[in-house]
Amino acid sequence: MGEFNLIARLVELVEESRDAEASGDAGAGDGGAEIVVASGDDAAVTVPRGVTVTSVDAFVEGVHFRRETAPLSSIGRKALAAALSDLAAMGAMPGEAYVQLGIPADLDEAGSIELGTGLASVAAANGVAVIGGDVTRAPVLLLALTVVGHAAAPEQLVSRSGARPGDVVAVTDELGGAAAGLLLLDRPELGVGLEDDVLRALRRRQLEPSPRLAAGRALAACGATAMIDVSDGLGGDAGHVAASSGVRIVVELTSVPVQPGAGQIAQAAGADPWEPAVAGGEDYELLVTLPADALTEARAAVERTGTALTAIGEVIEGADVSLRQADGSEREASGFDQLRR
Amino acid sequence: MGEFNLIARLVELVEESRDAEASGDAGAGDGGAEIVVASGDDAAVTVPRGVTVTSVDAFVEGVHFRRETAPLSSIGRKALAAALSDLAAMGAMPGEAYVQLGIPADLDEAGSIELGTGLASVAAANGVAVIGGDVTRAPVLLLALTVVGHAAAPEQLVSRSGARPGDVVAVTDELGGAAAGLLLLDRPELGVGLEDDVLRALRRRQLEPSPRLAAGRALAACGATAMIDVSDGLGGDAGHVAASSGVRIVVELTSVPVQPGAGQIAQAAGADPWEPAVAGGEDYELLVTLPADALTEARAAVERTGTALTAIGEVIEGADVSLRQADGSEREASGFDQLRR
Repeated sequence: MGEFNLIARLVELVEESRDAEASGDAGAGDGGAEIVVASGDDAAVTVPRGVTVTSVDAFVEGVHFRRETAPLSSIGRKALAAALSDLAAMGAMPGEAYVQLGIPADLDEAGSIELGTGLASVAAANGVAVIGGDVTRAPVLLLALTVVGHAAAPEQLVSRSGARPGDVVAVTDELGGAAAGLLLLDRPELGVGLEDDVLRALRRRQLEPSPRLAAGRALAACGATAMIDVSDGLGGDAGHVAASSGVRIVVELTSVPVQPGAGQIAQAAGADPWEPAVAGGEDYELLVTLPADALTEARAAVERTGTALTAIGEVIEGADVSLRQADGSEREASGFDQLRR
Repeated sequence: MGEFNLIARLVELVEESRDAEASGDAGAGDGGAEIVVASGDDAAVTVPRGVTVTSVDAFVEGVHFRRETAPLSSIGRKALAAALSDLAAMGAMPGEAYVQLGIPADLDEAGSIELGTGLASVAAANGVAVIGGDVTRAPVLLLALTVVGHAAAPEQLVSRSGARPGDVVAVTDELGGAAAGLLLLDRPELGVGLEDDVLRALRRRQLEPSPRLAAGRALAACGATAMIDVSDGLGGDAGHVAASSGVRIVVELTSVPVQPGAGQIAQAAGADPWEPAVAGGEDYELLVTLPADALTEARAAVERTGTALTAIGEVIEGADVSLRQADGSEREASGFDQLRR
């Protein structure tokens, strides 16, 4: 399959998905750039308004996903969702995407279309126009995404570096589901005793996360001082904010909202029940710091976007991250890699 | 090696290379966007002026290069040069780059730095700021580049679709060197009887091509009607322009400037001497169409950028590409893949 075929087909799939979208207010390309030349020339040409926010994210088979456990449409969905999550964490409006695909010999045209269909559905649901790409042969399946977002002015965006002592630390929705879902995909027997809908939600969190774009913009508008998406794990990502902002972040573990079933799956795997939520990553929720007096308004604004905001700790002077357990003791912010071994 | 280390090191390498550059007028980031937040946050933030031109290009070990024959610094150089060549073909001013790297287990930190040093030298030489990236493990070495260029207005850019009957077809510098250089890297014995400096120039053309950014802008300013970079081969790329513009392109083969030695290498490999120039690709020269009365001025403007412009044919009504040989017969526009078998 040629480069022009697959990228052109992907552009069509986005159009089709967009037309099929129930929500009428998210049109592809509405994010702040006029698209002059899209896929098919040497480069895409846009006329951006205001500020441009750009993030790149690569997904490699065997490293980020396995075709044995993840359907192709989920691989496409998750890759774009994870890339867009970086725009959510800046408080940007999503605009355009560029898709580089490496297609292995054992993936046929139908498989490539399935991958593209998943990706296109996330693009359409979030008002993203796919306007360029590159397709090549590769030894394993590769996806390298470039996503571009927009804002009217730099001041509307939220970096990792603005957390101040006295700020509240909060997180959207629930954590731990993606890591538990991954364990479950590898070892379905870990789910014995849990309800089917709980197991389905855990697998779905791993396979098809949603970027919190509307929540990110709402938090930015409510005065968020720092924001990051939870991709590496709560401990690690809080550490990035602490380091960038020059502060210490104290998380009360008992306040962390954990997705139902995640603790049980971890325990069934012989790990601590907090491990998926604290060290798992890939939940793509937003970790945010806010002035304490902005919390009530921020919670209401995030709820209007269809999810929850939970205060889980505070910013103090110092460095690093402190994860405080129920008995007052400190927990190590270990990585998820240990859990999977 | 962590993601933040290598991308941060790459940004430093660009700074160092830029400081070492003799030419003082090509500063990284001069291309038309103010850079607000670079590498290290969730996304990079820029304030572009005018029009933004974006291209993505992926390079996969075993498909686009082999570490057995290409030094790591050349792999880095060529990947960015090839990506920037797409901006050259639009007549854009280069601005920013985002670098996604997949690092295999057998590539150590020193090797990654060597790769980055090559890439950084091309960035610095062309006034490009590397402001974001992503590093991951991968089964083979991967580079996925996103390059962003700028122009004051869409009218300053040149697409593939504006060629008109009566236009002259011209090409910058010489063709065929990259394909001959690739044959030579695989089979050094093909070079027996050729001068050392001829062989060196052929290998260099394959390993370290230069993007024709200044020539592209000069041609755009002289009224180029369509432009493309010769990455797939003269026949194939002329075909893209013909298809996009709805015209027929007639190339006089005897007029095509061929890099010295390329014909001999092809003959030593048992192929037609025109094969590298016509079907080889990877030369990253510009193929341009111009009104006939603009040719003299365009030739002078391209010469001021340090290279040549040669008229090789004309645009007529119809479709497809015609490659006319010395005896008036037509040549098939075959792909280079046949030559390598």
